[in-house]
Amino acid sequence: MNDRTPDPVLLTPGPLTTSAVTRTAMLRDWGSWDGAFNALTATMRRQLLDVVGGADTHTCVPMQGSGTFAVEAALGTLVPPRGRVLVPNNGAYCARILRILRVLGREAVEVPFDECGPVDAAVVEAALVRDPRITHVALVHCETGTGVLNPLHAVAAACARQGRALIVDAMSSFGALPIDVGAEGIEAVVAASGKCIEGVPGMGFVIARRTALEAAEGRAHSLSLDLYDQWRYLERTGQWRFTPPTHVVAALAAALVQYRQEGGLPARRARYEANRDALVAGMRALGFVPLLDPAVQSPIIVTFRSPDDPGWRFENFYERMRARGFVLYPGKLTRIDTFRIGCIGAIDTAVIHAMLVAVESTLHDMTLSSHI
Amino acid sequence: MNDRTPDPVLLTPGPLTTSAVTRTAMLRDWGSWDGAFNALTATMRRQLLDVVGGADTHTCVPMQGSGTFAVEAALGTLVPPRGRVLVPNNGAYCARILRILRVLGREAVEVPFDECGPVDAAVVEAALVRDPRITHVALVHCETGTGVLNPLHAVAAACARQGRALIVDAMSSFGALPIDVGAEGIEAVVAASGKCIEGVPGMGFVIARRTALEAAEGRAHSLSLDLYDQWRYLERTGQWRFTPPTHVVAALAAALVQYRQEGGLPARRARYEANRDALVAGMRALGFVPLLDPAVQSPIIVTFRSPDDPGWRFENFYERMRARGFVLYPGKLTRIDTFRIGCIGAIDTAVIHAMLVAVESTLHDMTLSSHI
Repeated sequence: MNDRTPDPVLLTPGPLTTSAVTRTAMLRDWGSWDGAFNALTATMRRQLLDVVGGADTHTCVPMQGSGTFAVEAALGTLVPPRGRVLVPNNGAYCARILRILRVLGREAVEVPFDECGPVDAAVVEAALVRDPRITHVALVHCETGTGVLNPLHAVAAACARQGRALIVDAMSSFGALPIDVGAEGIEAVVAASGKCIEGVPGMGFVIARRTALEAAEGRAHSLSLDLYDQWRYLERTGQWRFTPPTHVVAALAAALVQYRQEGGLPARRARYEANRDALVAGMRALGFVPLLDPAVQSPIIVTFRSPDDPGWRFENFYERMRARGFVLYPGKLTRIDTFRIGCIGAIDTAVIHAMLVAVESTLHDMTLSSHI
Repeated sequence: MNDRTPDPVLLTPGPLTTSAVTRTAMLRDWGSWDGAFNALTATMRRQLLDVVGGADTHTCVPMQGSGTFAVEAALGTLVPPRGRVLVPNNGAYCARILRILRVLGREAVEVPFDECGPVDAAVVEAALVRDPRITHVALVHCETGTGVLNPLHAVAAACARQGRALIVDAMSSFGALPIDVGAEGIEAVVAASGKCIEGVPGMGFVIARRTALEAAEGRAHSLSLDLYDQWRYLERTGQWRFTPPTHVVAALAAALVQYRQEGGLPARRARYEANRDALVAGMRALGFVPLLDPAVQSPIIVTFRSPDDPGWRFENFYERMRARGFVLYPGKLTRIDTFRIGCIGAIDTAVIHAMLVAVESTLHDMTLSSHI
């Protein structure tokens, strides 16, 4: 890439292609102690909270770093040292939660599922019934490793029936798929700036139940990732505890304005679903096979099986698509050779159709022997 | 602030005023898996390492989050669980290191100093001689709470003589004040993007001795802040372990180009010293008294005593200066009423002189009874 070629379109699960308005919001410097920036932070927190309801019961706590930092902050702060966390595991981001719990010394109960399908809420509920010492369930809403959509509402209902707290990693679903923390009794939802709200990467946030935070003083394993301390400081001063990523916050605030202008969640979801439908139909027409059953395919990212052709190399495909202006994403499955194409970001079906034209000409250049 | 007024100048210890070139670098989206972004990361790591020498012995590991996240990552990864860390304490950022060690369960030995003066290396060395179980010293180079410059070179020599590892929080000195990790035998130096390199906030980095990192596998208290794991992943793949703050990285890379163009550390230091000298002389002429002895006053940030006048309110002074286009910074001392003005960022003495004119007219408006 050089300055004479246009920026490539990112068809990845984040960082993703943002709008020019969002990026332009970063052309200003903000003092982190200044009233104008505090107002920006307060508005951002309120608007993020509004996306998932719960204004009466929950609060939004931003956290510097990537989304994983916010997931770790939520687990380390909300799960007590003697807690036990059930983790339905159907992919890479579920496995990451298990890894975090291991590092933090929190007890985890893994319930494995096939990574090509969703979690089964009935199996989760049976495990809760069997083990009353399980205090929390940590569910990945959309498992970005494959793009499979997990049954959040059924799992939330099971947790409510069994009286366990539910922590949702909604990293790649927040803002695009409906979540209601109040109505569904969800303890915490974790997401990040550079996903479906279409900001730039650099911060995460946790929408947490206030009573759960209040009980968490002094519990965190880390000063930086202490969600309680971050929350109390924000409430007391209006400021972030440690230097905030000011430009990332400004971009997220601008992205939230555009999110509302577009029509909020229903409009964002409809655009992503249209992207996904155009992507899947177009790739099928070119001979590619999606990994997942359409019923569990999220509108976030689609995994395709690599062509069964000795001439196929994802790196080769990637570089040729890159030269045509499209950045794709490798697969994350260990057993099956796949690659991924994202549906999210400031893109529409016109971009998807242009990308499909590029795939067709790339395949022609690659002269695969058996495929297409 | 609204769109019709120019952005205020940030005379703060970071976030600070950046150049338009640095901010413009954020107008592009980068794929975090893409070769172009990996090249950017590699160049940034090498150039940051070059600022403090040690290309043969050390490596640069970036870390998402604020500078405190990187300090915690360094302490949690480089200090073994049975380690004992001496912390010379002459201010707020020294106290923060002590707080991190307490949360992490690492043993700390505090050696207190007056916060209006520097650390005494002889006192530190005597403490090391007395307690052979001390494994590490954690020194804040420039204590931003007051702006006092600590004697890094003398403390490094003491650590070398006594065979202890030195970890330097160089948050607000890195790039402006000379550090040579190789010649001085420093184990690790920690800093952040939004300070004297003049990037935007959102990531820190640790320049660490490779042998110290190699010994640190599996030691960290956190997955996100595991410096070893971050380093190994970067070395193996060229990519950040978790989503990087791509736009912050691009801004830092652009800031590093400008840093070299300006003439590197000697030029940056000279500019900041000229800013400080103009600031101190001009404020003295207006009747303000700097807190520190000139011999230990860093060219980073200057603390002034609040005027001894019943009509003085920093909030009032702040808002009036803010309306004139200058963002100042409150004091951080508990015993003495002070405020701070930064010397760093993309500013020169012309900005300082304009700010002094604003101070003069602000004081006139405030109609203080006794002062000036």
